[in-house]
Amino acid sequence: MKDLVKLEKKIKIKFNGLDLLQQALVHRSYLNEHPEFKSDHNERLEFLGDAVLELVVTEYLYEKFPQEPEGKLTNLRASLVNAHHLAQKAKELKLNNYLYLSKGEAKESSNTKARENILANTFEALIGAIYLDSGYKIVKKFIERNLTKDLAKILTQGLYLDAKSKFQEIAQEKYALTPHYKVLSEVGPDHAKIFKVGVYIGPEFIASDQGLSKQEAQVNAAKSALKKKGWQ
Amino acid sequence: MKDLVKLEKKIKIKFNGLDLLQQALVHRSYLNEHPEFKSDHNERLEFLGDAVLELVVTEYLYEKFPQEPEGKLTNLRASLVNAHHLAQKAKELKLNNYLYLSKGEAKESSNTKARENILANTFEALIGAIYLDSGYKIVKKFIERNLTKDLAKILTQGLYLDAKSKFQEIAQEKYALTPHYKVLSEVGPDHAKIFKVGVYIGPEFIASDQGLSKQEAQVNAAKSALKKKGWQ
Repeated sequence: MKDLVKLEKKIKIKFNGLDLLQQALVHRSYLNEHPEFKSDHNERLEFLGDAVLELVVTEYLYEKFPQEPEGKLTNLRASLVNAHHLAQKAKELKLNNYLYLSKGEAKESSNTKARENILANTFEALIGAIYLDSGYKIVKKFIERNLTKDLAKILTQGLYLDAKSKFQEIAQEKYALTPHYKVLSEVGPDHAKIFKVGVYIGPEFIASDQGLSKQEAQVNAAKSALKKKGWQ
Repeated sequence: MKDLVKLEKKIKIKFNGLDLLQQALVHRSYLNEHPEFKSDHNERLEFLGDAVLELVVTEYLYEKFPQEPEGKLTNLRASLVNAHHLAQKAKELKLNNYLYLSKGEAKESSNTKARENILANTFEALIGAIYLDSGYKIVKKFIERNLTKDLAKILTQGLYLDAKSKFQEIAQEKYALTPHYKVLSEVGPDHAKIFKVGVYIGPEFIASDQGLSKQEAQVNAAKSALKKKGWQ
């Protein structure tokens, strides 16, 4: 058994029962290797924790920014709860040392995008476990201590706006219209397609650009559009 | 002023202040027409209510189905909180009669998809307003009274399963085999391809259909297969 009491100290939460805390740390792969293990994996806790996290952050932003429109709050929320940011928080709490992973998964996923996803999911599962064990108020404090404290930095650095969001925010302000994207062409074989996407405000074509996926092409088109409009 | 006291009776919630209830009913279009109107529109309340709804439904499903995997809970949740279902609930509560809409919007959107979205958003805004006014316990009861009560019907009728999942579930039950899909043809230029996909149980061809992407073609093929087998 991992030293869960040490982890409790690190996260500054005292659990009524350590079973829930343990379950939050169990990746599905571990159970394949240890079918006799007494705990379930953490996916159901992640399902719950994701919704708890969403409400806590939503409520926090709703109260903190009484004048901001919903679109901006949505962007700010995304900047806080995206997988990359959650994985970072999980690393700060050293959750890496407490994961129950199969040997294969531990080896393969070390320091990769896959590990980042596992850590982000574990962070959400931990939130689910704290919520079940100690209730909304305690988990809210945990989230504020570990996550929403980053908001000042995110705001100062404008990290909350990717090109698409930024273009949308300004377009809504100036035109009261939400930009939309259209795939103009797909070229190349299935495994190496290049997408060309155009971005429009209402019927007006603004710019186009390409990428290796539709999403990438949209982001690039938004960047071109920001440049073209001089909205940078 | 609309008869909000009548609405309170209909939704069985007594507000401490009717301002919040009123705000939940104000569509953005109304303020363009009445810039002097004292209330803000409902989009921030919708932002909040959406997250409240998500947690209430998530927690409900988590507790009600202790054995189900996260994937099934996610499908069930989607069947409860999708815009179509929320709009239906809004209609049952006669929210249509209480909306603050611009004349243009009221005329144009009557009985369309756009109106359905407005109603679904208003239902979420109402949830946000109840949460702010009366707290989590009361809004939870409201949601259970109006929304999660439909779960039994959704489960019986398999409404929570998209066509592919439904076909897979029944095929596994009857044949102990998982259906698989094959692209039969791709026709047309790169930017406007039409895919034709066949669905099979073991070696047995069941049905085929087409779509503008492989995924769409698979879903259509599953629908055709459900029809052909009489599994609807």
